[in-house]
Amino acid sequence: MQFTSDQRLDDGVLERAFTLGEIPGILWTPGSASAPAPLILLGLPPLGLRTMYPRLAARARRAAADGFAAATVELPGSGDRPRWAAAEEARADLRRAMEAGEPVSDEIIDALVLPLVDKAVPESQAALDALLSLPEIGGPAGYSGGLISIGIRLAVVEPRIVAAGLFAGSFVPRTMFEEARQVTIPLHVLLQWDDEGNDRQAALDLFDAFGSKEKTLHANMGGHTGVPQFAADDAADFFARHLT
Amino acid sequence: MQFTSDQRLDDGVLERAFTLGEIPGILWTPGSASAPAPLILLGLPPLGLRTMYPRLAARARRAAADGFAAATVELPGSGDRPRWAAAEEARADLRRAMEAGEPVSDEIIDALVLPLVDKAVPESQAALDALLSLPEIGGPAGYSGGLISIGIRLAVVEPRIVAAGLFAGSFVPRTMFEEARQVTIPLHVLLQWDDEGNDRQAALDLFDAFGSKEKTLHANMGGHTGVPQFAADDAADFFARHLT
Repeated sequence: MQFTSDQRLDDGVLERAFTLGEIPGILWTPGSASAPAPLILLGLPPLGLRTMYPRLAARARRAAADGFAAATVELPGSGDRPRWAAAEEARADLRRAMEAGEPVSDEIIDALVLPLVDKAVPESQAALDALLSLPEIGGPAGYSGGLISIGIRLAVVEPRIVAAGLFAGSFVPRTMFEEARQVTIPLHVLLQWDDEGNDRQAALDLFDAFGSKEKTLHANMGGHTGVPQFAADDAADFFARHLT
Repeated sequence: MQFTSDQRLDDGVLERAFTLGEIPGILWTPGSASAPAPLILLGLPPLGLRTMYPRLAARARRAAADGFAAATVELPGSGDRPRWAAAEEARADLRRAMEAGEPVSDEIIDALVLPLVDKAVPESQAALDALLSLPEIGGPAGYSGGLISIGIRLAVVEPRIVAAGLFAGSFVPRTMFEEARQVTIPLHVLLQWDDEGNDRQAALDLFDAFGSKEKTLHANMGGHTGVPQFAADDAADFFARHLT
């Protein structure tokens, strides 16, 4: 892990770009911390780090204000990272189906999401290895947002992640429902009730499937990108309960 | 409105019992308040004020800590208030159906809930008249908990109530879904996902029906009486946003 640049934001938060092998990422740490900070790993949708930067930085600043470090790494096939043919094909199939107003088939969803999960999860774990070895970062770690299937897999396979805030706003392969049953960590699930690109009933079924004893669903109005500010506050309260 | 007793609780909150005509009630006001406090009207289930007192007092203390007054009035036919024959019959029908493991018919639900709503709502409005005329209470007012159908009707007919926290945990007559569409104030709806006495799908349909632009559903695990402490905190944040 190599830091490639750093800047101090106006609220004192230290923002550092890094690369982990070929993978670019960003780490935000609180301006003043007397002890190693717990970490929130911020998940990404497959839109690229650059596109998502403003929203990520806002969430990271909020995390830092609560005493947490936050970090994110570019997804495979996003941003400047090399594309791979099968993923590009699946994206094209998705676009075609949506433009034609057709239902998106399970085959398209599987081809789109499953290889991405398979690649992204070990990368997230490698990022955890590197981040948690920094003296300014302690544990435990939480996972927040991004592609929900990556969050589900991480919650199952990665014991250092003790709580997850998930956004039920993307296509979920049927096999992920089985993995969801194996999740036992506390979950905070956000659902935009009238999300134009999301199947509400599937999101409710997924929430029902999670094996966690503590799981909370917060549904709000406002479309996919219309998550209200108070929902971010509730999510921050969730991490404050479980990471401190 | 006549105060019949008062006591100062250990956190400085002033708790006063009152009667409004024949109706008993309780008012809690913050220990120290520099300005008239906004009011949260605490709704009741048909279990009686005495049974519900511990939970009500806890919610009232939390409201007082946030700078709000809180008050509640006994429902018609509950506690020491006179029963009426039709309601007793409907309760007996409900008990019979539930003990037999039969579905509770729309007729039973209507007979149980609609007359109660018709009686309780004007009483709640009379309580608002009296409470809001006290110098230590200002506005606006919120409504919290209790029988959800009473909350729905109040939200529609009572303009002094500007926000409502509702508990989707009771039988809802079909006609209330139509009233729900007329609700426009901000809503915070609590649902216990595995509530043994509640139809989850009906609760989700009801949430969907509300006409409010700002409405939030918080679903948690734990059965009807298992609402977690953090859910109470989220509800308190909701009122803090809308009553201050």
